[in-house]
This record gives sequence, structure tokens and C-alpha cells, in this order.
Amino acid sequence: MTPVRRIRAAGAPDLPSASWSNALLVGQELVMSGMTGHPATRQAAERGEPLDAHAQTLVVLGKVKALLEAAGGHIGNIYKLNVYVTRITDKDEVGRARRDFFAGQGTFPASTLVEVSGLVFPELVVEIDAWARLDIDLANCDEA
Amino acid sequence: MTPVRRIRAAGAPDLPSASWSNALLVGQELVMSGMTGHPATRQAAERGEPLDAHAQTLVVLGKVKALLEAAGGHIGNIYKLNVYVTRITDKDEVGRARRDFFAGQGTFPASTLVEVSGLVFPELVVEIDAWARLDIDLANCDEA
Amino acid sequence: MTPVRRIRAAGAPDLPSASWSNALLVGQELVMSGMTGHPATRQAAERGEPLDAHAQTLVVLGKVKALLEAAGGHIGNIYKLNVYVTRITDKDEVGRARRDFFAGQGTFPASTLVEVSGLVFPELVVEIDAWARLDIDLANCDEA
Repeated sequence: MTPVRRIRAAGAPDLPSASWSNALLVGQELVMSGMTGHPATRQAAERGEPLDAHAQTLVVLGKVKALLEAAGGHIGNIYKLNVYVTRITDKDEVGRARRDFFAGQGTFPASTLVEVSGLVFPELVVEIDAWARLDIDLANCDEA
Repeated sequence: MTPVRRIRAAGAPDLPSASWSNALLVGQELVMSGMTGHPATRQAAERGEPLDAHAQTLVVLGKVKALLEAAGGHIGNIYKLNVYVTRITDKDEVGRARRDFFAGQGTFPASTLVEVSGLVFPELVVEIDAWARLDIDLANCDEA
Repeated sequence: MTPVRRIRAAGAPDLPSASWSNALLVGQELVMSGMTGHPATRQAAERGEPLDAHAQTLVVLGKVKALLEAAGGHIGNIYKLNVYVTRITDKDEVGRARRDFFAGQGTFPASTLVEVSGLVFPELVVEIDAWARLDIDLANCDEA
């Protein structure tokens, strides 16, 4: 049997009412739920200063990083991002945030980006489903 | 080489015309196609009593269970659900069904839920792409 | 540690400006980004002869094949396709292309197909996120 461990991070808390786990460590694979900018996005919207796609993407990737670090990993473990946006015209802003986040790493994860008709809260413009393994490091990728 | 075995279940039959497999056992990983409530959803719609999101989700998860059991597994093997709904307002009903289905397990799978603009038949309101491994059991997850 | 190798193929070139990798070989798993028919789709649209869903699907699967072959693999390694279409009515044409592409293999990959509200370029009608492992061969699947 491969052990499964629940991963919890203050930077990406599980909701008490949730019927899902934000992160499970399955062997060396960190399995994560799709992450959004909530509740930062809600708070910003209520202030009348909604977060744009670049800002939301950085919040989301920050949560992924928090979960990875809680599991003993780091952002070099991320090998794929499935990105859902509500406005396809935001793709370049998402790309810029992805570039900012992985700056200096040399190799980017694989990535799939599609526009969906809705996310779980109306103020959300991006959700990311990230795939990561603790036993890899894209900073040491063979780019040959 | 890792062996691949086609998994067939009476509760989730492959269509004769299908150009895909409903389930493949790849080593310990049960790889499944996105499951819908069809044909129960079609029959219910034709009776004038269309299935709602809660009912459809339970039908879908029942198919996932049937495929898992045909492979020698059980629902504790499921580690992730990618959920596609056609109305984001159904998210709580999907969550309620997920809670009902995994009742007593202690740890829920990871889950990503987005609204898409359409599924393969008009009466469908939810499709689920489930990820499972026979060598794990979320009922024995380390929740520390 | 599991080694990671960047895979490049002339038939599916990485864009210089991309903030993602088209393909990474992670151990025996070929992790790919969602593939589209671009730039063939753009060129065809500019000629006034836009590619339909069947043609686009074959271009996309051809790119997946190019990446697999660059990694030392073949189409029998593909175990799952996540298909995003912009018009659900194209599902049968996508299925026909999938059937043409895997003709003679005996066992099809698992597949999930949903309609999304948009893809990265307006002329695109299908995007495919393919999953493959070099250590499997669906041509030798146990169909029992």
C-alpha cells in the first residue's frame, strides 16, 4: 500500500464545510484541488477593488506553494498546471503571472488553459489545478 | 513494461460505438473516462422527471464505484474528482452528493469544480472525471 | 529523485514567448500541455478555409504523436485524452478522428469531453490534453 497523508497549510486553509481535501500526499505525488484566490478575491471585491487576472493568479500560485511547502516540497516540484479562466482575453496576464512566479527556474511546467463559463464565485477570473511530485525538481530539468 | 488491463462493469457499460475506453487499469492506477448519468438521465428526462444535480452526481459516482469494484477496488481508492457542471449554482448540490457518497470515510478526495458551457447530452448537468489507485485507501489517511 | 527531461519536437514547437513547456518526461510519464491545431488552424483560417473539428483533431493528435516519438515513444503509450471542444455538436467528428488516429490498435485510451466557452484563439474548435507513459502499450492491453 502507498501511504496517503492529508496536507494542511495556513496559507490555503480547508473550509470547515468542505466535502473535499485541498491536498493529499499520495506517495511522492501531491494531489491538490483546484485553487482559487478566495477569500482574498472576495475581500478585494467588497472593497471595490477587485483583483485582476494577474493578481488572482499570483494568489492562487501562492496557495499551491503553501501546500507544497507544508508537504516538505517547493515550487520546482510542479510539473503541470490546468488553468481555467472566465475570460480568454486574460490569457496573457495569466502567462505574465506564471512567468513572474517561476522566474529563474529555467523550465516551466506544462500548462493547459481553457475558458470556462463560470467558477465557484462570481469575482473569480482564474482557477488552477496544479500537479506536483516531491521527487522531481524542474530547476534541474535536462533541457537538452 | 507496466501491464494495462481493460476494466468493464455492468453498471458502467462501454457503448459499442465508443472510440474510448471507460476504464483501464494501468499498474495500480485506475484510469477512467469522464462519467455521466447517461442513460438514467435520458430515461428520466423522457419520463418528464429529469434528474437534478444531486441525483445525477450519485449516479455518476455509482458508476465510478462499479468500475473500481470490477477492478478489485473500492471507493477509498479515489483520490481526486474533476467535476464539470453546466450550472455553477448546482455546486452545493454536487457537494451534498459527494458528502453522502463518501459518508464515514473521514477524508475526502481532492476536487476541482468548474462550470462548462455544455456536456455531451442536453439533459446532463454534471460530469465527473475520477482518479483512483488500487494501492491507496483514503479511509486510512494520515489526517495529522 | 526522478529525472525530468524537456522534450522538444519539430512537429510541436515551443513558442519562444511561452511560459510553459509543451512536454516534460517525468520518469516514464510524458507530461504534455494541452495541444491545439495552431498554427495550421490560423493559416487555414487566413486562406478562408478554416479547419473543421475532424481536421483539427487530427492535427492535434499528430502533435501529441510527434512529442511522444521525440521522447522515444509511440501512440500506444497514450492512456487518456481530455478533450475540450467549443461546440458540443462536434463530438462525433472528434470521435471519428480519434477512431481514425487509433485505427488498428484494438483498445482506445480513456477520454473525457466537455464543451468550453473559449480556447486561446478564435479559430480553434478543439484542444486536447493527452496523458501518456512510455512503459505501457495499449496495443497489448489485456481486453479480457
